[in-house]
Amino acid sequence: MTTAKAEQPARRASIGARRNPASQAAILAAARAVLAEEGYAGFSIDAVSRRAGAGKPTIYRWWKNKAELLIEVYAAEKARVKATKTGNLAEDLALYTAALWDFWRDTPSGRTFRALIAEAQNDAAALDGLRDKFLPERLLDVRTLFAAAVSRGEIAADEVETRLALYVGFNWYYVLTDSLDEGRAAIPAAMRLVAAQLRS
Amino acid sequence: MTTAKAEQPARRASIGARRNPASQAAILAAARAVLAEEGYAGFSIDAVSRRAGAGKPTIYRWWKNKAELLIEVYAAEKARVKATKTGNLAEDLALYTAALWDFWRDTPSGRTFRALIAEAQNDAAALDGLRDKFLPERLLDVRTLFAAAVSRGEIAADEVETRLALYVGFNWYYVLTDSLDEGRAAIPAAMRLVAAQLRS
Repeated sequence: MTTAKAEQPARRASIGARRNPASQAAILAAARAVLAEEGYAGFSIDAVSRRAGAGKPTIYRWWKNKAELLIEVYAAEKARVKATKTGNLAEDLALYTAALWDFWRDTPSGRTFRALIAEAQNDAAALDGLRDKFLPERLLDVRTLFAAAVSRGEIAADEVETRLALYVGFNWYYVLTDSLDEGRAAIPAAMRLVAAQLRS
Repeated sequence: MTTAKAEQPARRASIGARRNPASQAAILAAARAVLAEEGYAGFSIDAVSRRAGAGKPTIYRWWKNKAELLIEVYAAEKARVKATKTGNLAEDLALYTAALWDFWRDTPSGRTFRALIAEAQNDAAALDGLRDKFLPERLLDVRTLFAAAVSRGEIAADEVETRLALYVGFNWYYVLTDSLDEGRAAIPAAMRLVAAQLRS
């Protein structure tokens, strides 16, 4: 059945959708620039298309919607935030949080993140992207810190999801109220609570 | 100087802006209906105006923007969530959280809340409304639970803001990912961490 395989339309479509690295980089740079200058209110596939000099069909071939483009812009930048292990969960989380907040404050990524959360309240595909792609990928670093604490016996394995929700929520509260500077002093004590002993 | 007082323009203006209770109730009911049926994507002063049969100038006289209207719709509903005091902070918070999540799930208020958070990422006036009006008013109940724990000696007064941020963030994380059902089982342990002893 080699002829049937040669005729597979899915295979053709995937070749057509293969990314051209130069166009891709230009579109991501345009998306970053639009977000930095106009914020989420001015962010649209139209605006990115004009800025990049790329046709909308090209953008839509690679990113299904605005949320997917936001997620990729953010992911490319976030790589600069690194987790370090001190041997103590509360300290690890406090260091990581401070680095994350610097990243949110000093780059357009804080606005990109807030735009994605807003989009997810408004659009089911964006919410799926947030839950199924963005969060699992972006929380990998923090999960390594929790996993190390589990293997040291600092916390129990079945407590990780609850502690992670508290950790993520603390960050979201301050970034979504645009209050990172006001919240900064609270980081160490908050992380001690996230890492505290749980008595049942 | 009684003549000067009689001529005060501010007084006249405030009479003009005084709310007509029947129109106000009709507009709030229309706003609730638009949110329930169409969600935030379909929520606009235009849509509320059509639904209520009220002119847009009437709506704008009483609510400066979409966010103010959202905040008032939410506040009117939220009164049904009550704080109860068991004598233990973690238990008080767990009971309150379960009631809040029922309220978010069983009424259009969960969508209204998510709409307000989205609007605040997009609009400076909405962010101000969230920080300066919505949060202070909506957190009063939870603050009474923390204050009772402080007076019992369960937690220190200067730890309240940090614990409150963790508490609020935990709720936001689950409602903004539309995952209240998945998060429900984590409430008791999360609240024990929010109320845990802080060792410095």
